[in-house]
Amino acid sequence: MEHIKEVVTVEEQAIAAKSAAKQLSLLTTAERNEALVAVAAQLEKDYEVILTANDKDMQAGEAKGFDAAFLDRLKLNRERIEDFASGLKEVVELEDPTDHVVSEWTLENGLHVSRITVPLGVIGMIYEARPNVTADATGLALKSGNAIVLKGGSSAIHTNTAIVEVIKKALQQTKVPAEAVQLIQSTDRKETAKLFTMKEHIDVLIPRGGASLIQAVVDSATVPVLETGVGNCHMYVDNTAQVDMAISTFLNAKTDRPAVCNALETLIVHRKWLETNKDALVQALQENGIQTHGDDIAVQLLPDCKPATEADWANEYLGLDVAVRVVDSVEEAIDHIDRYGTKHSEAIISEDGEAVNKFMKAVDAAALYHNASTRFTDGHALGFGAEIGISTQKLHARGPMGLPALTTYKYVMKGNGQTR
Amino acid sequence: MEHIKEVVTVEEQAIAAKSAAKQLSLLTTAERNEALVAVAAQLEKDYEVILTANDKDMQAGEAKGFDAAFLDRLKLNRERIEDFASGLKEVVELEDPTDHVVSEWTLENGLHVSRITVPLGVIGMIYEARPNVTADATGLALKSGNAIVLKGGSSAIHTNTAIVEVIKKALQQTKVPAEAVQLIQSTDRKETAKLFTMKEHIDVLIPRGGASLIQAVVDSATVPVLETGVGNCHMYVDNTAQVDMAISTFLNAKTDRPAVCNALETLIVHRKWLETNKDALVQALQENGIQTHGDDIAVQLLPDCKPATEADWANEYLGLDVAVRVVDSVEEAIDHIDRYGTKHSEAIISEDGEAVNKFMKAVDAAALYHNASTRFTDGHALGFGAEIGISTQKLHARGPMGLPALTTYKYVMKGNGQTR
Repeated sequence: MEHIKEVVTVEEQAIAAKSAAKQLSLLTTAERNEALVAVAAQLEKDYEVILTANDKDMQAGEAKGFDAAFLDRLKLNRERIEDFASGLKEVVELEDPTDHVVSEWTLENGLHVSRITVPLGVIGMIYEARPNVTADATGLALKSGNAIVLKGGSSAIHTNTAIVEVIKKALQQTKVPAEAVQLIQSTDRKETAKLFTMKEHIDVLIPRGGASLIQAVVDSATVPVLETGVGNCHMYVDNTAQVDMAISTFLNAKTDRPAVCNALETLIVHRKWLETNKDALVQALQENGIQTHGDDIAVQLLPDCKPATEADWANEYLGLDVAVRVVDSVEEAIDHIDRYGTKHSEAIISEDGEAVNKFMKAVDAAALYHNASTRFTDGHALGFGAEIGISTQKLHARGPMGLPALTTYKYVMKGNGQTR
Repeated sequence: MEHIKEVVTVEEQAIAAKSAAKQLSLLTTAERNEALVAVAAQLEKDYEVILTANDKDMQAGEAKGFDAAFLDRLKLNRERIEDFASGLKEVVELEDPTDHVVSEWTLENGLHVSRITVPLGVIGMIYEARPNVTADATGLALKSGNAIVLKGGSSAIHTNTAIVEVIKKALQQTKVPAEAVQLIQSTDRKETAKLFTMKEHIDVLIPRGGASLIQAVVDSATVPVLETGVGNCHMYVDNTAQVDMAISTFLNAKTDRPAVCNALETLIVHRKWLETNKDALVQALQENGIQTHGDDIAVQLLPDCKPATEADWANEYLGLDVAVRVVDSVEEAIDHIDRYGTKHSEAIISEDGEAVNKFMKAVDAAALYHNASTRFTDGHALGFGAEIGISTQKLHARGPMGLPALTTYKYVMKGNGQTR
């Protein structure tokens, strides 16, 4: 048994969030939008409080010797805080995903059935030291009528605390209860992990971050998880692929932003295409400083190609390296993707309708591309207006998740005394 | 490391199912329907093989002293097997839930985006000693293009083995690979529990059965679970409720089939309504042999009402008992449901539009009823044509689950060289 602590426990925070979620479910779209507008204004006004707190985290992070990329994600300035505010204002403009009648019908006995979208309830958001997630996720949660329990990376604790204080200050002037936003202060892993099993109070967990963070949540959670994950993305260049198109989509997928999850990691290429178009590909690789790691045939055909290990096929490079597999058919390409793909984004460049159809049917991934770069797997690029993350699981939401992923539905039955 | 065993391991079965799922994804609706027709015919033809195996399970069950209800669910006869076959034929007539274009649009750059429903892949079905689930779940899985790994109660192992052998015999004459249906033979809990964490091979787990079975799966699963669960259902009779309607819907919800999950367990009644209509309610209770367990006021007002304990509020009776809570407002009723409800089915009987709206908004459950019995929460009653189970979770599918619950979707992008 836990002893009562001076600070609130994770369970107390989850209960408060659940209670706030019930109040939220009774508010109108306008009332929730007004709260987001108030939060945006308060962030713009109180930016200095947040920057002061951020300085503390930055100093601690530098003292601990965190790397430059980590510190860059942690670091805030006035402009970045204004970006939080404008992000919230954009969310205000989006359509409310709740209270939509998805379908409705009347049974023969006159009972009217409607399926209506409703908020999930309480979202548990687990993420790394990226303060922007604190503001973004809160905005998306409140917009969709959900309460949120935030557990950010402990290296950002001062920044997150300041952001959440500003948010709560703003909410106090609105109809949205301030308790709808909870930031877990505890850094005790055992205490915070309780969030993962509080099925009574938390409706969904959304882990965002590296593979190990996501794995830790999935392994210990009994609360359902919306899994976002890694993208070990492939492009298959078929025998019939147009050479210019193959090279331009490949280069875009590989080099536009190599560190993101929809970037390309493995090029699968038909042997005949490679034999014919080797020179054009080699030139593109060299001009863009791309290091290849290939199978035996690739090593034979491509200059400076290193032999690929199992890790080359299985892991994301997130940089200017690419694995190259040479195959004799679309079936071989599909088998390779089956084995190593992470069900994120997979492309085929081909002029052969039958091969394309087979690829589209048999490859099991959130996003499949014919004759295009994999870089479009992104809520903004696809026109969703906002993105909570990119799901690599199959239940509930797959691929880029917009606001509707934060809703569920109710069946509402209206009768006049029907019995069965 | 596992040593190679003579019998196939759960992992080998899961891998075989995954491979079969890939073949299934390339088949047409007609080819899958033909397989179901063939299975139905084979079950009708080979019923004696199944009955012989069922005898073994029945004898073992009787020797172990299982109760009559358990043995009744286990027991097959020719008619029940013919019911399996006609169930499969009904599934053939249902619409294929896969390959629907849910939405489509074209980006400004000309990239065409479509969201298309596809099978989940491999379904892991965990259930008790009910051989009908073996046939029903297989039918629904194959109809929706999924492979299935079945783990039925070990008391039905001979029956299930015979049913699955008949199914596989039929499939061998069709385009659906026989490996799409796998029955786990192992009775070693540690071995079978491996199914719960094989994320690479199993796409979803569906536990069907009592609360302890479901809990065991949820607790150890890393594979996403479609949770079906208990229904601790309430009916709130508001101050404004029509007396005849309140009593007829209450009696239907409570007495029509008390053992099912959409049956009523707690009557919440407005104090003023009870004071006015006590005699009519008492007469209905007495005529139907319903035992009440109430709060202080109910004990005072209703004859033979026992004082309710915490268990009376929290658990399903599944018999002719009912808990009775007396309240002074719809808010109190909502609070009670919040505390004890299992998010299944909840009803309000009322002529007050404001109270009804509040109830519909604030009560968090899969199915909400205004002026009707809770008994309609059922795939067949709602016209879904088939039901995999009734989900009490919020992600993916909520309430009665028809064939669409066994699908996910892909984004399919068609371009002509688009880059970002």
